[in-house]
Amino acid sequence: MSLIQYLSRIQFDFDAIDLLADEISALGLRRPLLVTDRGIEASGILGRALHAAHPHKPMVFSGTTENPTEANLDACLALWAEHGCDGVIALGGGSALDLSKAVALLTSHGGRFADYDVKTGGSARIGKVSPQIAIPTAAGTGAEIGRASVMSLHDGRKCVAVSLKMVADTIIADPGLTLSLPPRLTAATGIDALSHGIESFLSPSYNPPADAIALDAVARTARSLRRATEVGSDREARREMMMGALEGGMALQKGLGAAHAMATPLGEAHYHHGTLIGILLPHVVAWNRPFSEDRIARLEQATGDGRPLERWLSDLVGDLGLPQTLSALGVHSADLPSIAVKAAKDHLTLTNPRPTGADDYGTLLLEAM
Amino acid sequence: MSLIQYLSRIQFDFDAIDLLADEISALGLRRPLLVTDRGIEASGILGRALHAAHPHKPMVFSGTTENPTEANLDACLALWAEHGCDGVIALGGGSALDLSKAVALLTSHGGRFADYDVKTGGSARIGKVSPQIAIPTAAGTGAEIGRASVMSLHDGRKCVAVSLKMVADTIIADPGLTLSLPPRLTAATGIDALSHGIESFLSPSYNPPADAIALDAVARTARSLRRATEVGSDREARREMMMGALEGGMALQKGLGAAHAMATPLGEAHYHHGTLIGILLPHVVAWNRPFSEDRIARLEQATGDGRPLERWLSDLVGDLGLPQTLSALGVHSADLPSIAVKAAKDHLTLTNPRPTGADDYGTLLLEAM
Repeated sequence: MSLIQYLSRIQFDFDAIDLLADEISALGLRRPLLVTDRGIEASGILGRALHAAHPHKPMVFSGTTENPTEANLDACLALWAEHGCDGVIALGGGSALDLSKAVALLTSHGGRFADYDVKTGGSARIGKVSPQIAIPTAAGTGAEIGRASVMSLHDGRKCVAVSLKMVADTIIADPGLTLSLPPRLTAATGIDALSHGIESFLSPSYNPPADAIALDAVARTARSLRRATEVGSDREARREMMMGALEGGMALQKGLGAAHAMATPLGEAHYHHGTLIGILLPHVVAWNRPFSEDRIARLEQATGDGRPLERWLSDLVGDLGLPQTLSALGVHSADLPSIAVKAAKDHLTLTNPRPTGADDYGTLLLEAM
Repeated sequence: MSLIQYLSRIQFDFDAIDLLADEISALGLRRPLLVTDRGIEASGILGRALHAAHPHKPMVFSGTTENPTEANLDACLALWAEHGCDGVIALGGGSALDLSKAVALLTSHGGRFADYDVKTGGSARIGKVSPQIAIPTAAGTGAEIGRASVMSLHDGRKCVAVSLKMVADTIIADPGLTLSLPPRLTAATGIDALSHGIESFLSPSYNPPADAIALDAVARTARSLRRATEVGSDREARREMMMGALEGGMALQKGLGAAHAMATPLGEAHYHHGTLIGILLPHVVAWNRPFSEDRIARLEQATGDGRPLERWLSDLVGDLGLPQTLSALGVHSADLPSIAVKAAKDHLTLTNPRPTGADDYGTLLLEAM
């Protein structure tokens, strides 16, 4: 077992899930609420986690939807109140992880989720939240070590709360939980992990430790993503992908760039995030190249491939069997102008290495059609 | 200003010291105790810090000795009690930083320092300690982000307390504070920073983010240590050295190796730690080589030098004008056997890549004479 502690206490290894009972005790929890989804329940992973939690008996909410909603949150808060819960365990992908952060936030601070909207300055009021253990079941979002929670409100708006105080106290990263992840999801979430390394390394923020971690995330995912997708049972590839995703999440504090700035408004139509990123990122790298020659050269060293980064990326996305155009996903040209405007206003545009306005985003989106 | 947060909140930049008042307020401190030494007081850096703390008025203890003692600690605790202090600011090198951790520990936990000895298991009882701000004035030990405090007890024994709970809440890393550090101290503390990158990278613990940070620390210090020593006013070199030292400190959680295992007992005779490391490390790298071929090759890539790492290191130490043998420091051959025995028992021997017993240490020490 490897104990790693940067933003959080991270237990990383195959079978690390077996430490769940110890980690619940270490946080002093008596009645945790476990937040997961039906897929995790059906796959047997929930059963494994409950077994590992013994003699603790978490309450379970398995109704997390693909994009977590305020209705999910209300259901969790009702369970928490009814059973006197005192901490939350997230078990799943980005949705369960985001929902758990929201539960930890509201059970400690009260109010409604919208009160903590980062856009209105509400996130600045976030102090220490309820104790959290995060157990990712995919290698991708890095949300297990992330500081953000995205929630669809009752009125349909998406709202984001962001605070370092919301990072989980403990992460249990067990690559064994990803062995049964299907190829397409492995590929799309893996591209997301890779993109976190690339976009955060290209961000102009000064943070050398995060840069070093980002480069390592790129090297690791570049080496292992094909293999993890083609042979899902390959333990070494799954381990490398989980570490790469975690490192991608650790590097995120530098901020991301134009690919994520476009994926946010495009994601409102429920296209898969990693799939969108795979389509957009090669165009963004080409766009950024004149402003990031040196850094892109270091990324090319990290991938260990002779080709230009944008070319290597688009070949990789194709080889993984993922869509390579927005049209193939069903995006309509008529929607692009409003998406370009939203992307230009997104805070991630500020950490893209090349200044990018709405017109530039319009061009990039057309290229990606 | 760059805000970096891994183990701690790190404010890193020239003039970051000007943020001291804000950071005191952010921790909610009303009456901090500032721990420093006479050299820092005489250099004008203390005056600068007190000015930056305004309108806060820290109490000052400037009697820190080169190896902090329990007498220093008692004096700090008396000041704390007399003035109702509620947090500690460390301003200085490794000694002031270590002493401040001890102050934070005892003011929150009570008892004597020896109660928290890592060797007797006392460190395991350490919970959250009093709030701390760490302001390093040299680029070397990494103690500003470290988890250990070394104290010379009243009875002459050295005692070490180790806990992640003792890492400072906030670090203000201002390379400007190192501009007046004399060449010899710049060289010796810089070698210590470099050695943290090298020995932690060679440690077999699994921690890829720490590995990535360690390699970056080596690359940065390898590029800048000569320049910072030769032209102390070179701001870029000072910045790189301070970042390299911080990264070396972040990587330490992997554990160090045989050079530090020998430097600990040798240091009891008050030889300068970085100077000892400069003498010992080339021999340790040569000794480890058969067990770490791949990792040493990656370190050689990071130094950007064609020579074998051990050769590059010993040339560097010589060029910096530091002693290259233990004899030159005044170590007597008769003392080596007991030092070898102590090194073999040191916990850092466990994270050296090659198993190293007392006889092996004896041979290494003779080579270094």
